[in-house]
Amino acid sequence: MAALTKSFSFSAAHRLHSPHLSDEQNREIFGKCNNLHGHGHNYELEVTVTGSIDPQTGMVFDLVELMQVVQEEVLERFDHKHLNRETEEFHNLNPTGENIVHVIWNLLQPRLGAHLSRVGYGKPRRISLNIMERTRKSPA
Amino acid sequence: MAALTKSFSFSAAHRLHSPHLSDEQNREIFGKCNNLHGHGHNYELEVTVTGSIDPQTGMVFDLVELMQVVQEEVLERFDHKHLNRETEEFHNLNPTGENIVHVIWNLLQPRLGAHLSRVGYGKPRRISLNIMERTRKSPA
Amino acid sequence: MAALTKSFSFSAAHRLHSPHLSDEQNREIFGKCNNLHGHGHNYELEVTVTGSIDPQTGMVFDLVELMQVVQEEVLERFDHKHLNRETEEFHNLNPTGENIVHVIWNLLQPRLGAHLSRVGYGKPRRISLNIMERTRKSPA
Amino acid sequence: MAALTKSFSFSAAHRLHSPHLSDEQNREIFGKCNNLHGHGHNYELEVTVTGSIDPQTGMVFDLVELMQVVQEEVLERFDHKHLNRETEEFHNLNPTGENIVHVIWNLLQPRLGAHLSRVGYGKPRRISLNIMERTRKSPA
Amino acid sequence: MAALTKSFSFSAAHRLHSPHLSDEQNREIFGKCNNLHGHGHNYELEVTVTGSIDPQTGMVFDLVELMQVVQEEVLERFDHKHLNRETEEFHNLNPTGENIVHVIWNLLQPRLGAHLSRVGYGKPRRISLNIMERTRKSPA
Amino acid sequence: MAALTKSFSFSAAHRLHSPHLSDEQNREIFGKCNNLHGHGHNYELEVTVTGSIDPQTGMVFDLVELMQVVQEEVLERFDHKHLNRETEEFHNLNPTGENIVHVIWNLLQPRLGAHLSRVGYGKPRRISLNIMERTRKSPA
Repeated sequence: MAALTKSFSFSAAHRLHSPHLSDEQNREIFGKCNNLHGHGHNYELEVTVTGSIDPQTGMVFDLVELMQVVQEEVLERFDHKHLNRETEEFHNLNPTGENIVHVIWNLLQPRLGAHLSRVGYGKPRRISLNIMERTRKSPA
Repeated sequence: MAALTKSFSFSAAHRLHSPHLSDEQNREIFGKCNNLHGHGHNYELEVTVTGSIDPQTGMVFDLVELMQVVQEEVLERFDHKHLNRETEEFHNLNPTGENIVHVIWNLLQPRLGAHLSRVGYGKPRRISLNIMERTRKSPA
Repeated sequence: MAALTKSFSFSAAHRLHSPHLSDEQNREIFGKCNNLHGHGHNYELEVTVTGSIDPQTGMVFDLVELMQVVQEEVLERFDHKHLNRETEEFHNLNPTGENIVHVIWNLLQPRLGAHLSRVGYGKPRRISLNIMERTRKSPA
Repeated sequence: MAALTKSFSFSAAHRLHSPHLSDEQNREIFGKCNNLHGHGHNYELEVTVTGSIDPQTGMVFDLVELMQVVQEEVLERFDHKHLNRETEEFHNLNPTGENIVHVIWNLLQPRLGAHLSRVGYGKPRRISLNIMERTRKSPA
Repeated sequence: MAALTKSFSFSAAHRLHSPHLSDEQNREIFGKCNNLHGHGHNYELEVTVTGSIDPQTGMVFDLVELMQVVQEEVLERFDHKHLNRETEEFHNLNPTGENIVHVIWNLLQPRLGAHLSRVGYGKPRRISLNIMERTRKSPA
Repeated sequence: MAALTKSFSFSAAHRLHSPHLSDEQNREIFGKCNNLHGHGHNYELEVTVTGSIDPQTGMVFDLVELMQVVQEEVLERFDHKHLNRETEEFHNLNPTGENIVHVIWNLLQPRLGAHLSRVGYGKPRRISLNIMERTRKSPA
């Protein structure tokens, strides 16, 4: 079994704020990340696909296709956007790292199928790195 | 002559939009960076101070003092903020990399005096790195 | 299942020397790392916690709590210390990378419980990277 | 269970060209990577060995031995070579990342046995990273 | 004065071989880098332009224009090429790091004029980094 | 004018303690860095040599010679040592970053002469980076 990981990056603004919590709870839990107008990050996204090596091409997955799927499903949705204010996905969902990788998994899975094995996400400089891993048997 | 460089990082949202240009010109020049609600970055800030080595302490500048000055003048102003909407400095000034280093130079210079020799600034992953250098004789 | 990884760093001196080996064997196996007064490293520590995403907060684990646990159990013990001479843990235990991650696992596990899934450790610049992984069923 | 990962690097030229495809198919699939004279990369190689910690030495595997095995089996074969033209392994095998890790796994496995658990390979700067993982039970 | 640095990367194969030296001298001086079929690298290129900040746009130089110039003059010439065999510039010139930055300076200078202040070049992982700096007064 | 920079690394233990200050002053100024048994770092060393490009070899300085000089003068002296206890240079000199680059400049200058233009030094992860620059006219 071989795995191919490709990294992507995008820039976005976000505000940590949960609709299931009061304003006071939001301030207490998320601190300055709850700041009204939001702040921003460069997000590093890693997508891993696994499979056997095609004996004709020597590849486990077509890299060009992978890049196109991520471009269409993720980068065009989130790059240079204010996640809370300009994306449908985070209009009522707190854009924590965990929820961002969950959403991205669900956007990529229909296109990549059983090949998708990991979605990783990090804010640079180790401030926090969130990795979503699910078994390929029960991806959703 | 020895030089001491300390790196800092902060996260902020910004929107590239010049008050001296029409909306159409802003869209044409800044593209998706002109997006209404802004996007975000992790900014890497480098501050360089120079001088001779103090024979008693073996230091060119007190690192603790340098960190305190940058904390007070830069990080508390800009970290986790939307630069256009929440900072006085960029209320009427386009928050390009060039203007950000210019503003930071002018904030640090009164506190660090002739020791200040460089303010560097970068968005990670080489998308763009802007460095402000002025001679110590004519800092402003 | 989502995983959250947080990186930490600390600086310490150590000397590779096993009490179960003769001085000659120690010199032969550990070479210049056996040098009497020790040498030093910046250690990169990675701690991974896993779990399901809390629907209220959108988080898999409280990052502030994770940072506090690592601060109390690891950083206050080992940062800016000579591991062999100033820590109880390595007074009679050879401070190899493998033993350091083993010790750190055992320090964190009572506080993080079943959430703890990986302790990684690296000396920068790929000279050696040691990763401790145990199944969550038999953590100790 | 502890794991030790050591990184290595080598520089090589290669040309993506599959003997199982027509010239036209090769051009279409591999684009400029199919360029006749080849191009080049710095390859980052990661080798992971796993095992229990030896109570005498505090090590999971002798790092010096690991470095010697990789030097003899991989670096002397591939470093500063044109993979297609100067190595037996890729004379009739397309030197994609997937095939390179496969070949390296098969070169290392007889020397490292059940300790070998992962061969990772990356072209720097996230353009593509290929990781080979197989269970230790069925390594070939 | 503000400076803007943009990084680019390209992959190429090269062989260190000087037409001014005998085959024996070439082998002695360049060792395995003189290997007949060449080897390869990922090259990191840094281009720095300096100037004053335009008060209308807040920029020192149009980043889009800079990227286009480097694309046309450097990347289309050298990316995914065998420098010795497929480029006019290095047909009779030894493609050392020093000569590569010299050639790139001369390719960029007519397009960037007095704004060009530095061409930097590095093979990743600090094996060697070559930086070309000339005063803006006598750029050629 | 071309410049060649080569990076090196070494691991050492040190204790910040100035013989010109009282024990109390040392504790106050250097904090936990003044800890009796010392702590440690991986040090990154950068050495820059400048000159014109030799038309025969295409090189500004012989990289092999540069590596040999740094090996003999710096790495053999300081790598895997406790700087305060095992090196003559820091027996009575506080091993701050500033003093370390100063000492390294004075060790390299007699061997590299007018070619030496910069000695840079950093503790990884931006905690502090110290750079020594002197004009080539008055190097000592």
